[in-house]
Amino acid sequence: MRLGTVRTADGGRVVAADGTGVWWVDPRHGNVLDIIENWAAAQPELGGGAPVDLATVTWRPPVTRPGKVICVALNNSANKDRIMSGPDHPATFIKPSSSLLGHGCAIELDPAWGRVHPEPELAVVIGTTGRHIPVERAYDHVFGYTIINDLTAPIMRGEDTFHYRAIHPDGDGGVRYVDSWVSYSGRYKGSDGFGPIGPWVVTRDEIPDPHALAIRCIHDGRLVTEDNTANLRFHVDAVVAFLSEYMTLEAGDIVAMGTALKASGSGGAVQNVDLTVLGGVIEVEIEGIGTLSNPVRTVAHEVGR
Amino acid sequence: MRLGTVRTADGGRVVAADGTGVWWVDPRHGNVLDIIENWAAAQPELGGGAPVDLATVTWRPPVTRPGKVICVALNNSANKDRIMSGPDHPATFIKPSSSLLGHGCAIELDPAWGRVHPEPELAVVIGTTGRHIPVERAYDHVFGYTIINDLTAPIMRGEDTFHYRAIHPDGDGGVRYVDSWVSYSGRYKGSDGFGPIGPWVVTRDEIPDPHALAIRCIHDGRLVTEDNTANLRFHVDAVVAFLSEYMTLEAGDIVAMGTALKASGSGGAVQNVDLTVLGGVIEVEIEGIGTLSNPVRTVAHEVGR
Repeated sequence: MRLGTVRTADGGRVVAADGTGVWWVDPRHGNVLDIIENWAAAQPELGGGAPVDLATVTWRPPVTRPGKVICVALNNSANKDRIMSGPDHPATFIKPSSSLLGHGCAIELDPAWGRVHPEPELAVVIGTTGRHIPVERAYDHVFGYTIINDLTAPIMRGEDTFHYRAIHPDGDGGVRYVDSWVSYSGRYKGSDGFGPIGPWVVTRDEIPDPHALAIRCIHDGRLVTEDNTANLRFHVDAVVAFLSEYMTLEAGDIVAMGTALKASGSGGAVQNVDLTVLGGVIEVEIEGIGTLSNPVRTVAHEVGR
Repeated sequence: MRLGTVRTADGGRVVAADGTGVWWVDPRHGNVLDIIENWAAAQPELGGGAPVDLATVTWRPPVTRPGKVICVALNNSANKDRIMSGPDHPATFIKPSSSLLGHGCAIELDPAWGRVHPEPELAVVIGTTGRHIPVERAYDHVFGYTIINDLTAPIMRGEDTFHYRAIHPDGDGGVRYVDSWVSYSGRYKGSDGFGPIGPWVVTRDEIPDPHALAIRCIHDGRLVTEDNTANLRFHVDAVVAFLSEYMTLEAGDIVAMGTALKASGSGGAVQNVDLTVLGGVIEVEIEGIGTLSNPVRTVAHEVGR
């Protein structure tokens, strides 16, 4: 089954789909997060709604306000020869729910933000809340999968990097200073519109192997990236188990698995697709999940009006 | 007025306080986020509830599930001589709502996480949703203030730092590689229990100047930090205005303003307070807002059970 959220006057309404069609879900089931939290009871009662004409809807993020969006950094095996030093486990940052954007909605970029490029990614939707999840039971906590475009502003990333002397204990009650670098992702990963997601959450039973899916990124009809989720360094089960050692994974949380990176024969790197300058339409396709497509609009704002 | 949330069998219930006492708020007003969103209508009707004995309650975070918790990094003027290079604007990261913890609740730390130290901070609670907020109207968007202890695991921070060759366009359709450092805060700022917050949100009218407040951090009765919010480099209005150029600040969002840093005469640096080893009780006091106090428990978990 597939679940999505479309905009209505009072916020949103859930739509569902399977091989037979697309229909409205009875509002008594609440939103997609409510349905995920009550899946065992809700699932048998989701059918029977009136058909939906998808041509007329405005999409919202399938889970409109997840508790958290955890993004795995540098998680493509193709990154290996670019990394001089780094961890042997998944490293992550958090994207705010306010950065999420529905399928088909315009990404509004300010020229003052500098370059912004797409990052096509498989996203996991957590089903069952858990902590200390063993790797062999990790998939039991996965509700399903969707598509996220983890937009990134590399000029902001550079600006929000500090070279500084971190304070550490000297072991004797005093402190010593250690030359360090830290970078902060609030703006460069979290600005409004930097998280197009959807259109559908596809339940786990429809995706027997999330690491055998072709993933493509297309800009204005030109194939930029052609990769496969097999190339992710840390797989879904390992990421879910690792994260849950540190933080509670809650129903509806999103885990973005890291960028598909492999340039297509005809395309270049995603880093060359500067959406701020190029505008156009950016699409991410994942086999068995669907296509996430968003137009880009450039909108200048005078800072500090 | 002050608003807080205490644990009940069905999740939580709102308590309010002023100079006359502490009382239960009628559940028809919803949770603190609902009250903030409907402040003009709700405020006149919040009084009249039965008195609350605070000695018997278990606190939850005042806003239990904010849309986002934005934390300003390295925002103390005392940091100046430690920063070799960095931005001239607020740099931020996002803490997940699952990391938040109520006043009095135990911070559970795993010895495998290495050193964890406190960071005493003033936190702003957003009242009116906005984007592109002019600095001179920034305080109109502030609902009130609370206290957050922005717990930090510096060993994890080091582990989750990459030295790598970032891909940038070469200006000619190809790419060039730029030697870069990136660090990711998912674990070191976002693990469960890393965000003690509360007990109260104090409405803005009670804090005429949020940059004239004494702030102290106390570990097991020993004064560690004695600072003043006057020493924050970027002030509340500048931070709210700057952030809103990039992201919608939503009602209930939390903005943690950055660590008070100045060591007390008798105390050392917060970085020397390794809660993982020391345990004990960690407190943050802010003048006019209150005291946030949490015991620490060390709990070992076998990874990957």
